[in-house]
Amino acid sequence: MTRSPFPKSPITDLFGIQYPIIQAGMVWVSGAKLAAAASNAGCLGLIGAGSMKPDLLRSQIQKAKKLTSKPFGVNIPLLYHLVEEQINVCLEEGVKIFFTSAGSPKKWTQYLKDHGAIVVHVTSTPELAKKCEEAGCDAVVVEGFEAGGHNGRDEITTMCLIPQVVDSLKIPVIAAGGIGDGRAILASFALGADAVQLGTRFALTIESSAHDNFKKAIQNAKSGDTKLVMKQLVPVRLLKNKFYDQVIELENRCATNDEMNELLGKGRAKAGMLEGNMDMGELEIGQVSALLKDIPTCEQLVQDLISEYHKALTRVS
Amino acid sequence: MTRSPFPKSPITDLFGIQYPIIQAGMVWVSGAKLAAAASNAGCLGLIGAGSMKPDLLRSQIQKAKKLTSKPFGVNIPLLYHLVEEQINVCLEEGVKIFFTSAGSPKKWTQYLKDHGAIVVHVTSTPELAKKCEEAGCDAVVVEGFEAGGHNGRDEITTMCLIPQVVDSLKIPVIAAGGIGDGRAILASFALGADAVQLGTRFALTIESSAHDNFKKAIQNAKSGDTKLVMKQLVPVRLLKNKFYDQVIELENRCATNDEMNELLGKGRAKAGMLEGNMDMGELEIGQVSALLKDIPTCEQLVQDLISEYHKALTRVS
Repeated sequence: MTRSPFPKSPITDLFGIQYPIIQAGMVWVSGAKLAAAASNAGCLGLIGAGSMKPDLLRSQIQKAKKLTSKPFGVNIPLLYHLVEEQINVCLEEGVKIFFTSAGSPKKWTQYLKDHGAIVVHVTSTPELAKKCEEAGCDAVVVEGFEAGGHNGRDEITTMCLIPQVVDSLKIPVIAAGGIGDGRAILASFALGADAVQLGTRFALTIESSAHDNFKKAIQNAKSGDTKLVMKQLVPVRLLKNKFYDQVIELENRCATNDEMNELLGKGRAKAGMLEGNMDMGELEIGQVSALLKDIPTCEQLVQDLISEYHKALTRVS
Repeated sequence: MTRSPFPKSPITDLFGIQYPIIQAGMVWVSGAKLAAAASNAGCLGLIGAGSMKPDLLRSQIQKAKKLTSKPFGVNIPLLYHLVEEQINVCLEEGVKIFFTSAGSPKKWTQYLKDHGAIVVHVTSTPELAKKCEEAGCDAVVVEGFEAGGHNGRDEITTMCLIPQVVDSLKIPVIAAGGIGDGRAILASFALGADAVQLGTRFALTIESSAHDNFKKAIQNAKSGDTKLVMKQLVPVRLLKNKFYDQVIELENRCATNDEMNELLGKGRAKAGMLEGNMDMGELEIGQVSALLKDIPTCEQLVQDLISEYHKALTRVS
């Protein structure tokens, strides 16, 4: 392993990876192909188990093992009803790196660690990050308000969140939310993060399984084209489209949660992100989409991030 | 003037100041005393004209001129009904640096420049920043979602906003929102900003005219204790208190703008921030308040910012 062009980070040692960059696990977007490509490029790739049935998850893990010999992990949102089956599939397949999210870190961390795994929990406030440390997590991802998809209720931005978390935790801190290029990686390290997790940026790569329509929509997104909505249910940052307009219409008249759930229905995220229904699909993406214009391979992306990082570092030194 | 410990910035030359740090103009918080202290410490101090009657503004400018021989400026929110009188008072008193906000940069920029002034407009989106450049502004302040007080509707965070603006503008860019220590200054420069504007951090100094009760409340603020509300009127980030609870109660039942205006009434910001009514006052403050614990003098603050900046720079190099 050659020397990293980034500052020394406990995260590269923890996972045995080259660069302190994590490819976020994203529902419908990060399967085996993206995770393996990110890992092959020197990052930590994550399969987003999201709504994968256990059998599909198993086949994606097996596929990733064929596509890379480097470490990769699985992101498991803990609120999914088949979470126990998902976790056992991962352990049976020899997965050693778990990123858990959307639930309490107390529930599964010890179980996973007892099985020899490294456990990182994703959270959105300094207080919850502290609970992750207390639950025995090896590291935390703290995700700012600007991040895509599901998000916290306190709306704390990455700029405010990272310094607070690093000041109060001993375990390594991975910054997420709004990080789309090497400048933002340097900014995250300046704020005290030990590593970064990029979602939207990896969704817009060749190897991402986002539908081409969705990739085009991310490329064309302008500033202000995403918004955090459905705060009464579970807050989620969406790209604006016809479905978003209907959500706003309900919110503006203080519709009930039942009405919102009825509009939401089932399968909207899949319809939008995987199947390319740009009108009525649920399009989960980060605010940083407005900055992104190209669709590189993961390998090219990582080279760009390194070069942008060093250009920014020269500027501030 | 000794060499700045920060990277070379067009902003220090533009204003003739030592450090690329602006003390934000803040209603009820930044009078002559704070502006002069910030300028004496090597930053650019700004008198927040906010709701000052023209005569009061004149006396504050005269007072600042006695307290400092260094450059200082005035921040003028353009929606105030006496804005023309305010501007003429400033010009009569020889003010040469104007930060305008809350209105179109087209309205006053040329007039001020015709009178030999430097004009900076405060805005919250890349598109509006472009309009500032087109209107002839010498620089822009771009303020992220995490900033205190009045804010934009697009909710773009500092991390996402700065890179987009610096990529599309030729004039210097001043970053604002969420910047409370030297780490965040380095992060802002990493993202491409030429300077930073700090509001909440300067509100919590000895020389700030915030009421002691308000300063204590800022010191005690925890993560999640501020929120952007009143989005149907003019979005404003407030510290949570009894008044905030009443705002939320109205918002949760989709009350009309008339009802909200009736609750808001008149003089609430003054009652809270200047007079120390912590229950029913309107307490405008940024999300970064959760990070701030001390109440330094401006001189001490600037020394701390420099030392934190260099500690962070060593970390990332």
